[in-house]
Amino acid sequence: MEQYRVCELTYQGSVLTDHWAQIDLTAVFSCKDQQVTVRGFYDGAGVYKVRFLPMAAGVWQYQVSGVITDAGTLEVLPAAPGADHSPVYAEGCHFRRRSGALFWPFGTTVYALAHQEDTLVRQTLESLKASPFNKVRMCIFPKHYDYNHNEPPLYAFEKTVDGRWDVNRPDPAFWQRLERILAELDQAGIQAALILFHPYDRWGFAQLSAQENRIYLDTVLRRLSAFPNVWWSLANEYDLCAAKTAQDWCDIEAFVASHDPAHHLLSCHNCFAFWDHSRPAVTHASLQTKMLARISEWRDQYQKPIVVDECCYEGDLDQFWGSISGREMTNRFWRVVTTGGYCTHGETFLDPEEVLWWARGGVLRGESPARIAFLRGIVESLPGPIEPLDLPVSPLFRMAARQDRSALEQMLAVAPEQFRHALKAVYQLGGEATFFAASEAVYMGHCGEDAYLVFYDLRPCPKGWLELPENHRYRVELIDTWNMTRTELLPAASGKTPLTLPGREGMAVLAVRIDG
Amino acid sequence: MEQYRVCELTYQGSVLTDHWAQIDLTAVFSCKDQQVTVRGFYDGAGVYKVRFLPMAAGVWQYQVSGVITDAGTLEVLPAAPGADHSPVYAEGCHFRRRSGALFWPFGTTVYALAHQEDTLVRQTLESLKASPFNKVRMCIFPKHYDYNHNEPPLYAFEKTVDGRWDVNRPDPAFWQRLERILAELDQAGIQAALILFHPYDRWGFAQLSAQENRIYLDTVLRRLSAFPNVWWSLANEYDLCAAKTAQDWCDIEAFVASHDPAHHLLSCHNCFAFWDHSRPAVTHASLQTKMLARISEWRDQYQKPIVVDECCYEGDLDQFWGSISGREMTNRFWRVVTTGGYCTHGETFLDPEEVLWWARGGVLRGESPARIAFLRGIVESLPGPIEPLDLPVSPLFRMAARQDRSALEQMLAVAPEQFRHALKAVYQLGGEATFFAASEAVYMGHCGEDAYLVFYDLRPCPKGWLELPENHRYRVELIDTWNMTRTELLPAASGKTPLTLPGREGMAVLAVRIDG
Repeated sequence: MEQYRVCELTYQGSVLTDHWAQIDLTAVFSCKDQQVTVRGFYDGAGVYKVRFLPMAAGVWQYQVSGVITDAGTLEVLPAAPGADHSPVYAEGCHFRRRSGALFWPFGTTVYALAHQEDTLVRQTLESLKASPFNKVRMCIFPKHYDYNHNEPPLYAFEKTVDGRWDVNRPDPAFWQRLERILAELDQAGIQAALILFHPYDRWGFAQLSAQENRIYLDTVLRRLSAFPNVWWSLANEYDLCAAKTAQDWCDIEAFVASHDPAHHLLSCHNCFAFWDHSRPAVTHASLQTKMLARISEWRDQYQKPIVVDECCYEGDLDQFWGSISGREMTNRFWRVVTTGGYCTHGETFLDPEEVLWWARGGVLRGESPARIAFLRGIVESLPGPIEPLDLPVSPLFRMAARQDRSALEQMLAVAPEQFRHALKAVYQLGGEATFFAASEAVYMGHCGEDAYLVFYDLRPCPKGWLELPENHRYRVELIDTWNMTRTELLPAASGKTPLTLPGREGMAVLAVRIDG
Repeated sequence: MEQYRVCELTYQGSVLTDHWAQIDLTAVFSCKDQQVTVRGFYDGAGVYKVRFLPMAAGVWQYQVSGVITDAGTLEVLPAAPGADHSPVYAEGCHFRRRSGALFWPFGTTVYALAHQEDTLVRQTLESLKASPFNKVRMCIFPKHYDYNHNEPPLYAFEKTVDGRWDVNRPDPAFWQRLERILAELDQAGIQAALILFHPYDRWGFAQLSAQENRIYLDTVLRRLSAFPNVWWSLANEYDLCAAKTAQDWCDIEAFVASHDPAHHLLSCHNCFAFWDHSRPAVTHASLQTKMLARISEWRDQYQKPIVVDECCYEGDLDQFWGSISGREMTNRFWRVVTTGGYCTHGETFLDPEEVLWWARGGVLRGESPARIAFLRGIVESLPGPIEPLDLPVSPLFRMAARQDRSALEQMLAVAPEQFRHALKAVYQLGGEATFFAASEAVYMGHCGEDAYLVFYDLRPCPKGWLELPENHRYRVELIDTWNMTRTELLPAASGKTPLTLPGREGMAVLAVRIDG
């Protein structure tokens, strides 16, 4: 047994033929002042299991009760050196592992990963391992959509005699197969953002009743919450799920949050209107959006990590959502990451066999993954997470968008005479101020006074400048985000620093403090 | 005398030494049922002039009164064949010349054109004549700003003994020089969007009193309103003009509109919040904006032509507003023009002599003008003006942005069952709907059923499709907007038409009806 690894107790008992989803099986694990209660599950063929994710090393006592009775102790060793498998949680607007290390999610999307034949799943997992991606968005239920017409090898539930899904009889083979995938992802250091519901369905999974959904979620949580690498995504495009009401979604969120002994990350992905990410159970904002200039605004709004989980896909579809270039996908990652957010990749290249990465996996063909790897290498070497470096005028636009008259008066009271008229002019923007600010975005971030990162995006400037603290020295590098080169611009700079740039698009500048 | 050309009557009279701006000099021109009253001006050295822009050919009678008394007739010949010099006016969301021809403004920006030495003005005019631009935004007052430090050769007014500008003594030399420029622009078929006020000033022109502004405007209108090619731009960035109140601006607008016998186009350019282009005296919307996906929305709002008069400049400044690539400028033109708007160019390449096109003129160096010429050639060959081809979902986003519950109910009543949930989901966007729609924009326009134009922008699709009417046949061309090539894709297409595209960014497709 090892800290941050699935700890599993297995028992043999009676063979069940019906209603095995919600068996009475509970285990309490205790170590010093920690106590965790988990619920077990029936895994078919008379096998009963209890899974637990130990967050601490040490000797844990356990007490199993219900249809199985057992007690004992188990020694959990500290996490082995090397790869970090500890779960990820949100801290402020960033992510951290339970081990304490910062976690920079660089996600990709393979919605129906688990619903492909073994050879394709194998290929996908190997592709993921060789990729820069440390998180994958994937559905528990199979997907029916354009380019998604294959039948999955297994289903989450067995069927009733009248052909309806019987949520009381989850199919152990389906779940075991999913778990093998999760375990292999974990082994490879890849988080699985498990999508619990989605609207793209021809089998009836999107039409289950509220009561059936609750039994399904109970199965998910009993079986999967001990996996260190799972994140809960309540839905892909929750707002397109026609069979669920707003109350259903609140109930789903509450059920998942309250039945997960490991307190995994939890969010929900939209088509149109964002989920209410300000709700306490939501750990981070999972957004479908193309408004990448608004990361800083949303950080302020939610005070949680902002993950752009869908911003179009690199590919060649005729649909607009699946036809951006590798260069544009790369730019989108840079825009999001330099302003303190996190971005998720997807790839949709037409394929005669309908194997498009974004849904079914296979191999990555695009030009962006290599550039995303390059970006990941840069930011993971930074001394801390990136905070957006807003323009000095950004607070004005927010004041205007709120039409906050008292904030305006306060600003006017301290503003130099020559700026007061412009302040009032900004105020006149009203609700348009948010639009305005986004349309004039500059993508800049910093790690306190330790590092500064500017992404010039589509601006082919031959000159630029950095405002560095006067009292520190910085090594300044030019980064070509597309050609993946890093060149020293200045060995030691301080204060307002003019820059000579190559006058091409896609450049970035990184200044890292060297006097620390 | 020729229709649509300045008709000028010149008289010799007493030499004035003071207060010659608002002399009592009026002329009434009559021809059949038309009667136009104009006011004359003192042009220095005892010369008095009356200018009139005849909109119709024929025999005009005139009666001059005030400090000069005269009467007579003059024969105005019909506009000569060849270049069309008739004034431009707004018709719906487009522009038309008085001659009846559609006018497609392809503007550029040379703010301080008239405030440079003769050799530079000459070079600028020659550059303009060789360019694709048929409109230039230029200020009456000189400009003080970054890269704008030179003193103008002449000023609009003489000074009082205490060194203040004396608006009662406009300097004839200044105005005559400006008029020579306007005349040469007209001769070259170039409209002059004359900017009456702006905030970038070190001379005091921005600080004139309301009374002084009125006398200045009176001079402008007496002298310049007979030029066929002038458009009135009340200001560049009106909202940064600290010395003027909202009431001042209303008065300025009303004065210009009511004292212009030729009823030239009239608008006003913003920095932050748009001018209220819904006001009756405003003929079209002159916008500074980078939100190029909202042209169709603003057309609906204002029901007037939408001119994006500033959307950043092609150049290499370190300021974000002056550092887009020629490719990006080209893309911006295509985005605006394919959705039924009009776009204006500007260029800001660093220059050791501080001669940047956007302010002082000189030569064009950028990569966009050739592409803008290519675009102009394409659209001017179309059978009519371009109307935006909104996505079928666009009205839903507008309904959501307005939170128009009754429109929602009406849509729900007729929507197929499977779309009703999504309709409600869109409605949940509220004010974010406008953002959402803009972030998912597709740039498509059409000329009734005669032509369809799609700009694929950053989408490198290898496939696409057009929804063409079933009952007509169209020749379909692929347009490479950057490499400026046109290639036939299909000689005759109808109905839903699949397209094979090259899979690169910057492509457009044009379908023109051939069975008409």
